[in-house]
Amino acid sequence: MKLSILGCYSATPRTLNNTTSQVLEIGNHMFLIDCGEGTQVQLRKHKIKFNRIKHIFISHLHGDHFFGLVGLISTFRLLTRETDLHIHGPKGIKEIITLQMKLADSWTNYNLIFHELTSKKSELIFEDNKVEVFTIPLNHRIYTNGFLFKEKEKDRKLNISAVEDANINIAYYRKLVQGFDVVNEDGETIKNEKVTWPGLKPKSYAFCSDTMYKKDIVPIIENTDVLYHESTFLDKHADLAVKTKHSTAKEAAYIAKQAKVGKLLLGHYSTRYDGLNAFKEEALEVFDNVELCEDGKTFNFD
Amino acid sequence: MKLSILGCYSATPRTLNNTTSQVLEIGNHMFLIDCGEGTQVQLRKHKIKFNRIKHIFISHLHGDHFFGLVGLISTFRLLTRETDLHIHGPKGIKEIITLQMKLADSWTNYNLIFHELTSKKSELIFEDNKVEVFTIPLNHRIYTNGFLFKEKEKDRKLNISAVEDANINIAYYRKLVQGFDVVNEDGETIKNEKVTWPGLKPKSYAFCSDTMYKKDIVPIIENTDVLYHESTFLDKHADLAVKTKHSTAKEAAYIAKQAKVGKLLLGHYSTRYDGLNAFKEEALEVFDNVELCEDGKTFNFD
Repeated sequence: MKLSILGCYSATPRTLNNTTSQVLEIGNHMFLIDCGEGTQVQLRKHKIKFNRIKHIFISHLHGDHFFGLVGLISTFRLLTRETDLHIHGPKGIKEIITLQMKLADSWTNYNLIFHELTSKKSELIFEDNKVEVFTIPLNHRIYTNGFLFKEKEKDRKLNISAVEDANINIAYYRKLVQGFDVVNEDGETIKNEKVTWPGLKPKSYAFCSDTMYKKDIVPIIENTDVLYHESTFLDKHADLAVKTKHSTAKEAAYIAKQAKVGKLLLGHYSTRYDGLNAFKEEALEVFDNVELCEDGKTFNFD
Repeated sequence: MKLSILGCYSATPRTLNNTTSQVLEIGNHMFLIDCGEGTQVQLRKHKIKFNRIKHIFISHLHGDHFFGLVGLISTFRLLTRETDLHIHGPKGIKEIITLQMKLADSWTNYNLIFHELTSKKSELIFEDNKVEVFTIPLNHRIYTNGFLFKEKEKDRKLNISAVEDANINIAYYRKLVQGFDVVNEDGETIKNEKVTWPGLKPKSYAFCSDTMYKKDIVPIIENTDVLYHESTFLDKHADLAVKTKHSTAKEAAYIAKQAKVGKLLLGHYSTRYDGLNAFKEEALEVFDNVELCEDGKTFNFD
């Protein structure tokens, strides 16, 4: 599982600060999460093979989270993309994009498939044999979802010498990595755990932006390996956080602590502060595994 | 008259290439012409005091000419702008912007005034005591206008020693710079040209992008000081120019020559070419005063 931060600042793009966008590589997928203005340039700058993106998840319809989407869709068209592109986002996103395509008389050659979200409860919105994606209903000024990305249980690993000693036909190896007991060439039943090792632990990533402190997301994201939680403000501006329905670094850390996540990533910083260290220090008072997102930073979680 | 090129490439923004946007300073105005994705960052990067912009002119609704508009409007809101902002552009632009403001529940505190264009004939779309702006109907895949910016006749300059020798009361100086004859303290009529010098020559700038070769714009832009004409392709790709309704550098030069403009600026380059010199060389075969636009370049025409 690998996360690339394309932008992690709030409000407006600036010369050195990009607004929210992330690429998550998980279970053979390359998911794009939010798409602020300039995301396509960030993708190029960081040499991400963005034609691999098949699913884009948009948390909400504030500009700093989606003004780059229409440009990316348009660029895919100019690059003669043929692969389907799925857009998961709040109701209204289809109208915004299709209106602009209609007025530009520029329809995509690839299938553009919108999955509009309206539910205020967590729901499964994508699933294949490796990964599940759930919404995390957040509390912001407009309808907003975070997203929980979870790998499914992974195949067990064959203990090759044990398998051979047990005289198991190769045709049963697939059953073994799936966790089943099998019958060997001598007609004996072989217990799975005698000839396999546990598979890699499935990874999970929760993306929570934008939101005010919302304790009832804790059960949804409990025990997640990595939590990105917005921290627009420091505690000294807690009043602004309430007023604008954002969170402080301390509040993000309280959520991480209660949800017993493995690691907390902070981001969506207001540009009113000089530097980011104060965000980390504040969160570390509450929770002990905190890292700062920065534009262009990549995290490997394997 | 000063022109700042924020972006001059076609199709999509890239790490080092920005799509169309220009700032024209003329007659105390700062006009923004087209607004590709990332324009607000280009404005910051080039330290342009963009709060001075009161009028934005959008040629057409292809993304590389206006995908940055909604973000700029949103940023003006966040910067607590109060001054009216006028948007001149094709019909449909109001619907695109207001739909996004509605879905984001983010209305501007300043007045956002749309002037939607539908005419296929050149028309006066802005006028004050210093400047006039006319549309230049172009021929592209969708409804497109160029824009002609013209300073009005400027005040004549007082020849102070001549004015004093002629014994003219100071109350008449305003009449003099406006070109009128006046009566002096001795009751004699003083001919204007005896006590004034001609004012500065009014400047003009024509912006023509995107368009295929369209000879009937020549009468509209005749004798313009500076003509920006798109040159997406070189002559060797003239077939592509016809197919996509763009121009070659040579065609841009033919327009400049027929319109007897002072200077031709080229831009809207396809990124298929290595370097820009071939565009200039091709145009110079037809017209002798050619310059290349480049992102971040500023032209002073005084």
